Amino acid sequence: MARPLSFEIKARSTTCNARRGVVTTLHGSFNTPAFMPVGTKGTVKGILPALVEATGAEILLNNTYHLLLRPGPELVSQMGGVHKFMNWHRPILTDSGGYQAYSLSETNSIDDDGVTFKSIVDGSTVRLTPERAIEVQNLLGPDIMMALDDCPPSIDPTVERPTQPRLAAAARRDSSLSERSRKKKTYDHVARLDIANERTVRWLERCIRAHRRPDEQSLFGIVQGGTDLQRRSWSAERIGALDCPGFAIGGVAVGESAEDIAKIVRHTAPLLPPDKPRYLMGVGYERDLYEAVRAGVDMFDCVLPTRNGRNANAFTSKGQLRLRNAACTNDPRPIEPGCDCEACRPGPNGHFTRAYLRHLFMADEMLGPILVTIHNLRHFQRFMADLRETIATEQWDVFVAKWPVAKDRAPEA
Amino acid sequence: MARPLSFEIKARSTTCNARRGVVTTLHGSFNTPAFMPVGTKGTVKGILPALVEATGAEILLNNTYHLLLRPGPELVSQMGGVHKFMNWHRPILTDSGGYQAYSLSETNSIDDDGVTFKSIVDGSTVRLTPERAIEVQNLLGPDIMMALDDCPPSIDPTVERPTQPRLAAAARRDSSLSERSRKKKTYDHVARLDIANERTVRWLERCIRAHRRPDEQSLFGIVQGGTDLQRRSWSAERIGALDCPGFAIGGVAVGESAEDIAKIVRHTAPLLPPDKPRYLMGVGYERDLYEAVRAGVDMFDCVLPTRNGRNANAFTSKGQLRLRNAACTNDPRPIEPGCDCEACRPGPNGHFTRAYLRHLFMADEMLGPILVTIHNLRHFQRFMADLRETIATEQWDVFVAKWPVAKDRAPEA
Repeated sequence: MARPLSFEIKARSTTCNARRGVVTTLHGSFNTPAFMPVGTKGTVKGILPALVEATGAEILLNNTYHLLLRPGPELVSQMGGVHKFMNWHRPILTDSGGYQAYSLSETNSIDDDGVTFKSIVDGSTVRLTPERAIEVQNLLGPDIMMALDDCPPSIDPTVERPTQPRLAAAARRDSSLSERSRKKKTYDHVARLDIANERTVRWLERCIRAHRRPDEQSLFGIVQGGTDLQRRSWSAERIGALDCPGFAIGGVAVGESAEDIAKIVRHTAPLLPPDKPRYLMGVGYERDLYEAVRAGVDMFDCVLPTRNGRNANAFTSKGQLRLRNAACTNDPRPIEPGCDCEACRPGPNGHFTRAYLRHLFMADEMLGPILVTIHNLRHFQRFMADLRETIATEQWDVFVAKWPVAKDRAPEA
Repeated sequence: MARPLSFEIKARSTTCNARRGVVTTLHGSFNTPAFMPVGTKGTVKGILPALVEATGAEILLNNTYHLLLRPGPELVSQMGGVHKFMNWHRPILTDSGGYQAYSLSETNSIDDDGVTFKSIVDGSTVRLTPERAIEVQNLLGPDIMMALDDCPPSIDPTVERPTQPRLAAAARRDSSLSERSRKKKTYDHVARLDIANERTVRWLERCIRAHRRPDEQSLFGIVQGGTDLQRRSWSAERIGALDCPGFAIGGVAVGESAEDIAKIVRHTAPLLPPDKPRYLMGVGYERDLYEAVRAGVDMFDCVLPTRNGRNANAFTSKGQLRLRNAACTNDPRPIEPGCDCEACRPGPNGHFTRAYLRHLFMADEMLGPILVTIHNLRHFQRFMADLRETIATEQWDVFVAKWPVAKDRAPEA
């Protein structure tokens, strides 16, 4: 049986672990390192698929959790699968739904067989097992599916709290739900990491066995292990030994510092099979992407360009620009001079000015989020395209000079 | 001094008063009869200007009231005028701000010099006189400006109430604000209509005198007179005698029946100068447009395609389709088979299905309003294009067979 995914490495850096390649699926190819926009509920919020494509995106991500709850995988399947449903003809990757089940929902239980949670749509009780996660993704029909993993807090929630409220709440829930905590009446974070690590391997084996469309869809395994490099090594070895066409690094960007993210990725990426695509889930800022590409990661997804775009924060090569700021009131410049996105590039009448964009946000007009989302998506695609070029040219200094954000997560441009 | 607007009539029906023409402004031409999408606050809600243009729109309308309050005409002028501000390179028409001052705001007073109202943005007191309405529009810089008119309720609010709450509230306010009501302690609707009629003539004279950019912008006068045909005749004669490059029929679609609209328009349109464009303000449904085109009207604007699109109501040749209906849940068809809009026409992956559109609305996703707005705008442009063709071919029966909505305001497709 022919594999529905192939990965060809076109160039390798000789000064770092970065590589440039092409992944080919039944819905076409995408260049790596690739940034995947997030189309949570089967739509990149506010952006027509043709405009998503025009930003340079060659693959996008949908969230199984959201599509499972509404409209349901059976309906998506009946409508011809997620590509046809959302009218996107290029490759699609779906996550397993596990992460959102932990982080968005009131989780009722995590046990060795799966996770039970309360639907955020109608409050009903939903059960996700490795088999069900695969069944749902077989129905949705993406090119790349993710295995169900157990993703515990990276930080011991009894010692410190993640600063993001959602992650803090998930960590509190996790510590109260862990089986061992119920038995011992205390929470043992190290033991929880080991449970998750071992469980994630067993769940991947079950996912592989449950996969019914291996000639059309590719299932990626996920490495866990928290911020502990020894556990990452153990997980990478066990997960990497299983028969998957690609592997992801999970449990990253769930509350750790940028330094911890870089440390985990630099350690883990080279442990994964060198001839298969490596995907760093949910990451991140340009600095994180830069470090991860140099560590040998090939695929990324993150909500930053879309979520921040809706909040009037525009990414530029020098940092983020807050378009609600009074300084933009009568600023005739585009978000980023020289950017070729729909918002910045000159049309028959010029470009969209910062002044106009600020007006749209102040007047609560949809076109503001739309234009800044388009710009931000293009920003990340331009950043990745330049990274791909730099892997061949090795002019990393030139890259960093052009993209100061690659070295510094400056909050303001 | 050369006039910044010319109107060339290309064809006239021999069986009705309809005519087909081209209006040329400094920002290009548009074909008439024309439908102008409404870009209230300097944006057609949720739609990139290039996509508005792709629906076939050749001119659009902005509301002076909204731009006056935010971001203010001085800022728009500083940014190069409304075309450059909103990045629309074709013709733009602005209304005077008067109608919204009556219908949206808490009106403080209407007197012979102007109207005073409370800003819906910050609660401040705003005064609009004929001179200020023109000053604001001279600053905004549209190709076509509208004179400030006095637009009283078309129905006596002490006898019956308009069914739309907003119009009913405006009528109540008007009856309590009328000068005569203060003196006589009663409201005399007929007297109010006469005051408005006479005042509108005086205000147009003042607008013409106040106009500072007659070589760049064209000022249209507005006929009033309520549902009383004698008063319409009087107004058309007095307004039509003044030196304007075009004329509008105002005070229509403010609570009257479709029959009353048709009656007013059939009576009034032929009374206006035959060689100048005629604009029916704020109208309407396809049946209203059909009747008005046959009566000799050349220009229209209405919020129906955009407002209804945001509410999941799609226009079709047979009536409106409510996309939230359960019947759409697994309906694989486009909104209207054969429609060539961005939502209906087949792309590389097919069209956007009713099932997907329903999902977007149920999930509160922006792309739903966006796609249905685009479809609705295209619907009205296709309707107008077919009307323009029919004026030359005189095949009115063929037109009505293709567009049943032209004869029947069916609420559901």
